[in-house]
Amino acid sequence: MNAPAKLPSLPTVADVENAAKCLRGIAVQTPLLENRFLNERLGGRLLIKAEPLQVTGSFKFRGAYNRISRLDADERKRGIVAFSSGNHAQAAAWAARLCGTPAVIVMPSDAPAIKIANTRAYGAEVVLYDRYKEDREAIGRRYCDERGMTLVPPFNDPFIISGQGTIGLEIAAQCAERDIVPDAVLAPASGGGLISGIALAIKDRLPGTQVYCAEPDQFDDIDLSLKAGKIVSHAGKGNTFCDALMAPHPGDITFGVMSANLNGAVSATDAEVETAIATAFHYFKLVVEPGGAAALASVLNGKVPCANRTVVAVASGGNIDSSLYSAIISRTPPV
Amino acid sequence: MNAPAKLPSLPTVADVENAAKCLRGIAVQTPLLENRFLNERLGGRLLIKAEPLQVTGSFKFRGAYNRISRLDADERKRGIVAFSSGNHAQAAAWAARLCGTPAVIVMPSDAPAIKIANTRAYGAEVVLYDRYKEDREAIGRRYCDERGMTLVPPFNDPFIISGQGTIGLEIAAQCAERDIVPDAVLAPASGGGLISGIALAIKDRLPGTQVYCAEPDQFDDIDLSLKAGKIVSHAGKGNTFCDALMAPHPGDITFGVMSANLNGAVSATDAEVETAIATAFHYFKLVVEPGGAAALASVLNGKVPCANRTVVAVASGGNIDSSLYSAIISRTPPV
Repeated sequence: MNAPAKLPSLPTVADVENAAKCLRGIAVQTPLLENRFLNERLGGRLLIKAEPLQVTGSFKFRGAYNRISRLDADERKRGIVAFSSGNHAQAAAWAARLCGTPAVIVMPSDAPAIKIANTRAYGAEVVLYDRYKEDREAIGRRYCDERGMTLVPPFNDPFIISGQGTIGLEIAAQCAERDIVPDAVLAPASGGGLISGIALAIKDRLPGTQVYCAEPDQFDDIDLSLKAGKIVSHAGKGNTFCDALMAPHPGDITFGVMSANLNGAVSATDAEVETAIATAFHYFKLVVEPGGAAALASVLNGKVPCANRTVVAVASGGNIDSSLYSAIISRTPPV
Repeated sequence: MNAPAKLPSLPTVADVENAAKCLRGIAVQTPLLENRFLNERLGGRLLIKAEPLQVTGSFKFRGAYNRISRLDADERKRGIVAFSSGNHAQAAAWAARLCGTPAVIVMPSDAPAIKIANTRAYGAEVVLYDRYKEDREAIGRRYCDERGMTLVPPFNDPFIISGQGTIGLEIAAQCAERDIVPDAVLAPASGGGLISGIALAIKDRLPGTQVYCAEPDQFDDIDLSLKAGKIVSHAGKGNTFCDALMAPHPGDITFGVMSANLNGAVSATDAEVETAIATAFHYFKLVVEPGGAAALASVLNGKVPCANRTVVAVASGGNIDSSLYSAIISRTPPV
């Protein structure tokens, strides 16, 4: 029998509360949107946490700023390196700029053009790599070794998770303002940083509320991992246009938090995600990118039912190329 | 010499404050969005009041509910009639439904399909008319006469103006929270109900702030009227895709308020409005319809300059057909 692996130190709700203090006046307290007409059609109450309205167009800014703003003077001088398909890239680049520290961002060469362009425009040095042949972590490590830069990981980090978790604190407070106790809260998941942080906050503030993550149906590594009781990769076959949700497996920290706090993982097909994007356009006037719409899609496809219940779905980002967005909303009707 | 026309009774900021009480918990307090990266490019500070996130997708709900909720039991039983190119139609239909009163909505047959469909879906009886041949006011009056319905006019009414003015109170409060004193506030205008209400609130709360309305450049009846010192119609030639901004002239109440409170009227071409829609998509992840983007367009085209200043532009609605929206964002780059 092998010796048990060293258990990671898991963040707690106190870390999330600390992140909220760090982000006050820096991150946007995004609104919780509702459409009563859509509610009538769903036979329940659906609330959308609108993170496309966040700084840099996605939730990722919360975690990136919570991590990067804590660098000491020496680390700040040497800079940070991050690898990301796009939203973490933009968030880390902008947070680094706000904190006055150089940034190298390692991005797949097939990331959406808008994400690469924004990351460069924010002042970061962008290093492109081949998603299918090269190891982004190795490239990132090289910059850490050669330039003494600090790695800002996309999800498997207590500060990143805690920053994303401020969304959960805001959901709890915004629900309380409206006298709502939601039956379920769900958010898209790739490596699980977002839903881990949210789960810490929701399970503390709303202990009776279910928490789910939503994955693209072929990229169901969190579902497989939760069911196996250990970290498992998805089969990795096929592709998804949810470019933000393609992490091969959760990290040890996110897996630890999710195992303890999630009620489960649900999924949506690309077609269901398209319907969710069109629904967000039509009913909420909110631009949502494919990966950002996986939770809404998982409500609309019935995996987390809304009928006779109150459900909060996080729309996690809105960085989508205009050509893809045009194609989706012109070919796909809303629910 | 003719006897002077009877002067209308003009609403005041007290009426706007009263409307805010009426709308509390019913209308959305829409967020004031900002993009620091866009600010850098503009060399100033631009804030967007996001009324596409309002109930029924435009600011019109504020005024309609403020009017319809004040019907007495008898009037409520007989119902309301409204004429509108679309946003007031949807707003009046939904407000009538919330208040439990029947609604007849008179709409031009060439109004955007989404607006006609939503108005019907909200439970109103829709009567279509030919914008170029028939008189919508006459059609509306017929329903008032025959069924004893109450006319809910689109803009020339103290309750309508006061309801829209709650946007101005929110802008003032949201600016105060951020320690901002804006140099200018501007909003799109057709008959002037929105900007009249906003001007009442802003000139009370922020007396040093300039207030402008933004019109499509061929539909500049408010600019002509303010310059002439009397109500004047626009030349009425040409067309604009700002379907919400085609009123031929301001009303006597809106003209009275605007004469006393506006610093002027600015304008934008359809091409400039397209750029504003693309800019709202790209930087704010907000769906804005053509008429709703006239104020943003008038900042981006320099008519109300933003450089070294702080400007608040109201994005007044987001009810746009997906086909038109797709076409715009795929052919037009943001600033």
